[in-house]
Amino acid sequence: MVDRNVVGVVGAGQLARMMQQPAIALDVRIRLLAEDASAAAAKVIVDSTVGTPRDRDLLLQWAQRCTVVTFDHEHVPTEHIRALEAAGHLCRPGSAALVHAQDKAVMRERMQRLGVAQPRWSRVSTGDEVTEFAEAGKGFPIVLKAARGGYDGKGVWFAESAADAAAVVNAMPDEVELLAEEHVDFVRELAALVVRSPSGQQAAYPVVQSVQRDGICVEVVAPAPEITAELAVQTEQTAMRIAAELEVTGVLAVELFETADGQVLVNELAMRPHNTGHWTIDGAVTSQFENHLRAVLDLPLGSPAPRSRWAVMANILGGAPQLFDGYPHVFARDPALKVHLYGKGVRPGRKVGHVTAYGDDLDTVVERARHAAAWFRGDGG
Amino acid sequence: MVDRNVVGVVGAGQLARMMQQPAIALDVRIRLLAEDASAAAAKVIVDSTVGTPRDRDLLLQWAQRCTVVTFDHEHVPTEHIRALEAAGHLCRPGSAALVHAQDKAVMRERMQRLGVAQPRWSRVSTGDEVTEFAEAGKGFPIVLKAARGGYDGKGVWFAESAADAAAVVNAMPDEVELLAEEHVDFVRELAALVVRSPSGQQAAYPVVQSVQRDGICVEVVAPAPEITAELAVQTEQTAMRIAAELEVTGVLAVELFETADGQVLVNELAMRPHNTGHWTIDGAVTSQFENHLRAVLDLPLGSPAPRSRWAVMANILGGAPQLFDGYPHVFARDPALKVHLYGKGVRPGRKVGHVTAYGDDLDTVVERARHAAAWFRGDGG
Repeated sequence: MVDRNVVGVVGAGQLARMMQQPAIALDVRIRLLAEDASAAAAKVIVDSTVGTPRDRDLLLQWAQRCTVVTFDHEHVPTEHIRALEAAGHLCRPGSAALVHAQDKAVMRERMQRLGVAQPRWSRVSTGDEVTEFAEAGKGFPIVLKAARGGYDGKGVWFAESAADAAAVVNAMPDEVELLAEEHVDFVRELAALVVRSPSGQQAAYPVVQSVQRDGICVEVVAPAPEITAELAVQTEQTAMRIAAELEVTGVLAVELFETADGQVLVNELAMRPHNTGHWTIDGAVTSQFENHLRAVLDLPLGSPAPRSRWAVMANILGGAPQLFDGYPHVFARDPALKVHLYGKGVRPGRKVGHVTAYGDDLDTVVERARHAAAWFRGDGG
Repeated sequence: MVDRNVVGVVGAGQLARMMQQPAIALDVRIRLLAEDASAAAAKVIVDSTVGTPRDRDLLLQWAQRCTVVTFDHEHVPTEHIRALEAAGHLCRPGSAALVHAQDKAVMRERMQRLGVAQPRWSRVSTGDEVTEFAEAGKGFPIVLKAARGGYDGKGVWFAESAADAAAVVNAMPDEVELLAEEHVDFVRELAALVVRSPSGQQAAYPVVQSVQRDGICVEVVAPAPEITAELAVQTEQTAMRIAAELEVTGVLAVELFETADGQVLVNELAMRPHNTGHWTIDGAVTSQFENHLRAVLDLPLGSPAPRSRWAVMANILGGAPQLFDGYPHVFARDPALKVHLYGKGVRPGRKVGHVTAYGDDLDTVVERARHAAAWFRGDGG
């Protein structure tokens, strides 16, 4: 008989690592499938198996002693998740939900059927199809995306012209499915994060503003400044509706564009704890990581209420090789700052940690978070 | 060369376990010396060595790869800590400080020299000496304590009469040193928790009220209700003075009696994260566990400010064998409650976890914490 408190996590990045903190509190045992023994989560989780989830037999064997299986990333082949399910393992989210976070074309088709607002889009396989798509709308620039495998700006291209589009399409291996999307002239990016349990309970965190640079999230402000109560509620309810329709279990993060005319369009979906929810560790009553564990175990969800007026999370990208050297200054300058380092080797632009500041005055909170992130990065900000 | 971020922790109970959560955030690597591979902390810390700190050679070898050594409990022989120091290992707290938490007679002598208010006391080795001590004061009852090795009410006896006292003393093995203390007719118990770094920086948490039953802490209210600002500050400053005089590094918890005439007397000292500080995990900007790690690594301390008007911690003692069964009700009733289970086997009266509630209304917060602790314990409260 399998214990009731063993959560199998496929993938050993910072998300799995940050699940371990509430797992310790709840006495949930995380069983890790890590690609690498020195991965961020493998350093802090005792029950780690080293191997790739692309190895179907290994995955099936590893899952034997898990109460439920969940994921640190979207890169497990959908058919392997189906094989886990066929063998009787609980996967949360399940393959039928997760495919919408794995395949952008499948996601776009589903959003369309649900009538959720999103950018104009089309599947494309030639440069001419891209140009046709562009000319039927506002013209170039056009965003091209690989349907599968992208993250943090990878698998996304901007085509300024028909020639650009043809170059991207022609350089693509045949097996890569592409979609074209209109370039949305957004005023800012928002994210709505909800958690759903198998029994259908849901908790919605406040809608946040996310600031991206080169396709990578650099800063999150919770809640999104100057958002109307009406738009916030509508956006949270849209995320909850998507979670319910797709039967998501665990965290669903919906990344959104807000346009000048007040529309909110779905950009991406993720079904795991998400960078736009890291502020909840220090800024909410229950963190997204705790609620993800509670959801996949079908326990009642914790309160998603914020604990302060404002919380700002800033990612530490790249940075000085010895992040530890940042502590004496950062902690002395700001005794209330919360720092999270992921135990990863530093490479330029790599997410190696984040900081969170919270308080009553937004400008002060933003300044505190930015200063600390810049200090760890080793530049002036 | 030893890494700069490896904190060796001797002992693998719930205190070491709860250090792991901030250690993950700070990328501090805990290196554990666990008496048992299935101990609470060994389940959640990868770098665990199984062995007893009474084995001096093992202790010295284990410490090789630690930046600094700290403790989950007071039961490491003082001479072994001196041996670590003689071999060049940093011990925080050091042996010269820690002996005051290991030996109650040494502690009493030191408090006396410092002029800190405490119960009348004396070293005793015969029943007659106890009776003499009693008769020189308010008479019986008298509290008898073993100088070393006691915790959670163990090593403490109440003598109601000369015959009682003689029975306790005569039953004691020769090597046990005893002290007699006047029985303090206190109105309540308080605790002051401060953190001190080797460079002398200190942070003081608000003074709390602790409720004990059979010598075991069952509930902590932070801050202590109806304490005057003057008494709170004086008490915190006394704790800081003790930490400075004894050159404590890390957490110092001072357990205190408040008497009807408004006096505050030192009862016990502990030099490690302490049960009366568990509320800080959810209730303060920086938890005692994070500040203990920061202190022993001589990093600037984090803010000890509370995050809500009231926080109440209730211990889960003994309890139903399957603590996990408590979650569906406890979480559904109170989505804002924070639960911490230690992954320990359940035995009657054993500390197996705690809950923390926080909020604006004290009665409500107390009721929430008590209800949840009673539910896990499996009785009506």
